[in-house]
Amino acid sequence: MAIGIQFSITLFSLFSMLHFTFTFSHTIPLPRFPSSLVHPELQLSSDSAEKNLYKTKFFTQILDHFNYNPQSYQTFQQRYLINDTYWGGFKKKAPIFVYTGNEGDIEWFTQNTGFMFEKAPHFKALLVFIEHRFYGKSIPFGGNKKIAYANSSTLGYLSSTQALADYATLIIDLKKNLSASHSPVVVFGGSYGGMLAAWFRLKYPHVAIGALASSAPILHFMGVTSPYVFNNIITQDFRSVSENCYKVLKGSWKLIEDTSDKKGGPELLQKSFRTCESDSDPGSLEGWLQTAWIYAAMTDYPTPSNFLNPMPAYPVREMCKAIDNSSRGNNNNTLEKLYDAANIYYNFTGTVKCFDLNDDSDPHGLQEWQWQACTEMIMPLGGNNEESIFPESKWSYDDRSSYCQYAYNVTPRPHWITTEFGGHDIKKVLRRFASNIIFFNGLRDPWSGGGVLENISKTIVAIVAKEGAHHVDLRFSNKEDPKWLKDIRKKEVKIIARWIKQYHEDLSFNN
Amino acid sequence: MAIGIQFSITLFSLFSMLHFTFTFSHTIPLPRFPSSLVHPELQLSSDSAEKNLYKTKFFTQILDHFNYNPQSYQTFQQRYLINDTYWGGFKKKAPIFVYTGNEGDIEWFTQNTGFMFEKAPHFKALLVFIEHRFYGKSIPFGGNKKIAYANSSTLGYLSSTQALADYATLIIDLKKNLSASHSPVVVFGGSYGGMLAAWFRLKYPHVAIGALASSAPILHFMGVTSPYVFNNIITQDFRSVSENCYKVLKGSWKLIEDTSDKKGGPELLQKSFRTCESDSDPGSLEGWLQTAWIYAAMTDYPTPSNFLNPMPAYPVREMCKAIDNSSRGNNNNTLEKLYDAANIYYNFTGTVKCFDLNDDSDPHGLQEWQWQACTEMIMPLGGNNEESIFPESKWSYDDRSSYCQYAYNVTPRPHWITTEFGGHDIKKVLRRFASNIIFFNGLRDPWSGGGVLENISKTIVAIVAKEGAHHVDLRFSNKEDPKWLKDIRKKEVKIIARWIKQYHEDLSFNN
Repeated sequence: MAIGIQFSITLFSLFSMLHFTFTFSHTIPLPRFPSSLVHPELQLSSDSAEKNLYKTKFFTQILDHFNYNPQSYQTFQQRYLINDTYWGGFKKKAPIFVYTGNEGDIEWFTQNTGFMFEKAPHFKALLVFIEHRFYGKSIPFGGNKKIAYANSSTLGYLSSTQALADYATLIIDLKKNLSASHSPVVVFGGSYGGMLAAWFRLKYPHVAIGALASSAPILHFMGVTSPYVFNNIITQDFRSVSENCYKVLKGSWKLIEDTSDKKGGPELLQKSFRTCESDSDPGSLEGWLQTAWIYAAMTDYPTPSNFLNPMPAYPVREMCKAIDNSSRGNNNNTLEKLYDAANIYYNFTGTVKCFDLNDDSDPHGLQEWQWQACTEMIMPLGGNNEESIFPESKWSYDDRSSYCQYAYNVTPRPHWITTEFGGHDIKKVLRRFASNIIFFNGLRDPWSGGGVLENISKTIVAIVAKEGAHHVDLRFSNKEDPKWLKDIRKKEVKIIARWIKQYHEDLSFNN
Repeated sequence: MAIGIQFSITLFSLFSMLHFTFTFSHTIPLPRFPSSLVHPELQLSSDSAEKNLYKTKFFTQILDHFNYNPQSYQTFQQRYLINDTYWGGFKKKAPIFVYTGNEGDIEWFTQNTGFMFEKAPHFKALLVFIEHRFYGKSIPFGGNKKIAYANSSTLGYLSSTQALADYATLIIDLKKNLSASHSPVVVFGGSYGGMLAAWFRLKYPHVAIGALASSAPILHFMGVTSPYVFNNIITQDFRSVSENCYKVLKGSWKLIEDTSDKKGGPELLQKSFRTCESDSDPGSLEGWLQTAWIYAAMTDYPTPSNFLNPMPAYPVREMCKAIDNSSRGNNNNTLEKLYDAANIYYNFTGTVKCFDLNDDSDPHGLQEWQWQACTEMIMPLGGNNEESIFPESKWSYDDRSSYCQYAYNVTPRPHWITTEFGGHDIKKVLRRFASNIIFFNGLRDPWSGGGVLENISKTIVAIVAKEGAHHVDLRFSNKEDPKWLKDIRKKEVKIIARWIKQYHEDLSFNN
């Protein structure tokens, strides 16, 4: 691969989070957490969403929970969304379901966590979705993103521990205001939000009686999970559909570079992939394709979905169909086949005329994940062994660190997450400590490689769906959902119901 | 009581922590944690202590674990003391016993936690005593106390959450350097150190397999424990010795004030109490006496001890003996009797010629507890009901807050500790969460009112000694120790041995 060129071009241009690891590790993009999926029937405008699903509120939150200097006392407005349609009320000690917001606009997550809305009537639950600090409309420093995102002096307050303390503070205050101190709280989250949900139960058992942590890669940290696992799973996803598909994808990088080096090659690439810019470099094209394969694997759902882009059911299968398509005929059409496959991610609706390979638009406000990935979220992934569909490469902490120094003048703390939350020997640590956590993982999801895949104790359980993808359980249900997915949701409901029942039993027993 | 005068005199003079609540609540001094007791045989100089008990080391610690601004990356030298005389070594996965340092010089605590030294050979344990940030020699900002203690900008980094994160970081690093990642860690602490030990097990179960939290008033926070409990226990301690003693102490405040108001009264008080200053006000005298009664109650040990001052066994009994002493004869000698009683605390060795009522010397470096008591350690105590040996009064959060505003320009966060660590409904919260904590409390100790006095689960247990005082279990043993104390230490050893055994079983089972 044309490493030197990629490096220089991408490093000194504007680039999204998706590309930054690419440029440093010379391998594949570090995916954003594919935080949630928009239900096809729920492409609501913000107005109608608010009207139907929730009301928007703001909470005056403290800037720094762990320090007492004057700066720490600053406050900001933290957004949360609330739906009390189904709540049984404080007198009945009816439960409160709280979504621990991820790295983006909370409305987006809320509109895509149908599970909570669909199960609220059964539990008579109050629904609360809390936005993570520094995302969406929950911006410190007067809500001014220019100041908040300016540099490490202000971004410094963006951390997982502060976010968890925000959630504890807000929930306790909310319960007090609702006279609902005896209503049990269950936390929910998917992806990074799932990590926060699990950690919240571990750190704040006095606030939440249990957590459903969906696709939460809490083990995806240095020294705990191999950097190769993520891409191995993607490789396996494609290879399981067809060996030819796997081989074509694996060979594509050389094909693209060889083509690019030929006379007329860049023009051929531009034409084949309908890129808007005529001088698009092969590195950008490779990053663009890799993004498609990664997100298809993560969101390889059994029904049509809309994550960053609309996609059909089982997009990996559809991509391989395009690759394997014999109607394209001879070998010379491999570039067209790759284009067809990428189109399933980038242009399923068929409305796009040309593609901007370096598009760094950020409709869901995920940008600041980059800061988190530069400070504490050192999740090693993107290493590629010989078998990978991506070019062979190693994940490098030094590359990450150099990038972070360059981008923010900040040095990562690669061991902080495991210091604060653990991760090593999790089965031994938690088998006699803690309770009431569900870890859901779908094995098609590359993030499952850093998830908890085995039961730890009777009450800390792993639910694993061989055919599942990234937090599929939290999505709105669909009449086309397969039986395994319906069964998993039933199982989750049953477990949560048990937590609540036991809570109420303990309450009456002790009072 | 001459409230106005006390307020103005004390507020604008130099005063120790001991007096600040006094001046604001017009009641009794807020005791420092009587953090440890010096064993009579162990009045070692620093040199000989180091030679015999431990070696001194320093660890480069990060200033702010929860923030990533440039300031947070500053480091400081954190002191810890280590003794490997008895350690079985990493190959045998022998345990590591860690003392989670309190609000003062770690050498003082170490020299007075004989339990760990005496039990180390049995467990083949490595001993480590970590100093709390901002105390002793573990001073951020280049070790410069003038800067570190200057104001809230620098003191802001002094907090319990930062201290716990320090301990986790240091322990993990130490284990790594010793190749001892499989050696189980048990944490120990008394008083505030005991709170930290319990919280450490709750928050860092992946670092410590269990905690012995001795006399840890983790429930002594607003809305959880009544502000009257502390002084009620002191009252009961004296009253249980003799009704006359109780009545004399209860009547003493009026007697002192009446005497002070009389012509020649101040001179009589000065003469009776051998005060150095001839113009000592009755408020200072009352504070001076109250300090003696409080510390006698807290350290009402069965053998001679030396906390802030040397004292005989059962000092409360000795004080009441002095009060009840018929050889002093008629009622007019009540002042002399009070002096005799106070002498047991202030002058048991008989070497003091006159007393400085406002002595604010701080040989063990406890001063910065005042900052902690102004930010997060809002422990309501000092309320006095009609029965109290102290004058009737209410504890007032507003008074505390006003003081803290005055002293540091800081507003307390009175609910932070319960938000971060819990406290409400602790039995319900922890009966199905967490494990391996021993809460020891002696019921003579006024701090026991905020302690965990009942078993929570099979592995979170309360050991309560009716005749015990403040973390008496952690003291060096003494051949005069009563049977109940010997039994308690045996019980603690047995429980800790069970944790370690189970840890090793789990380790071999899973590997």
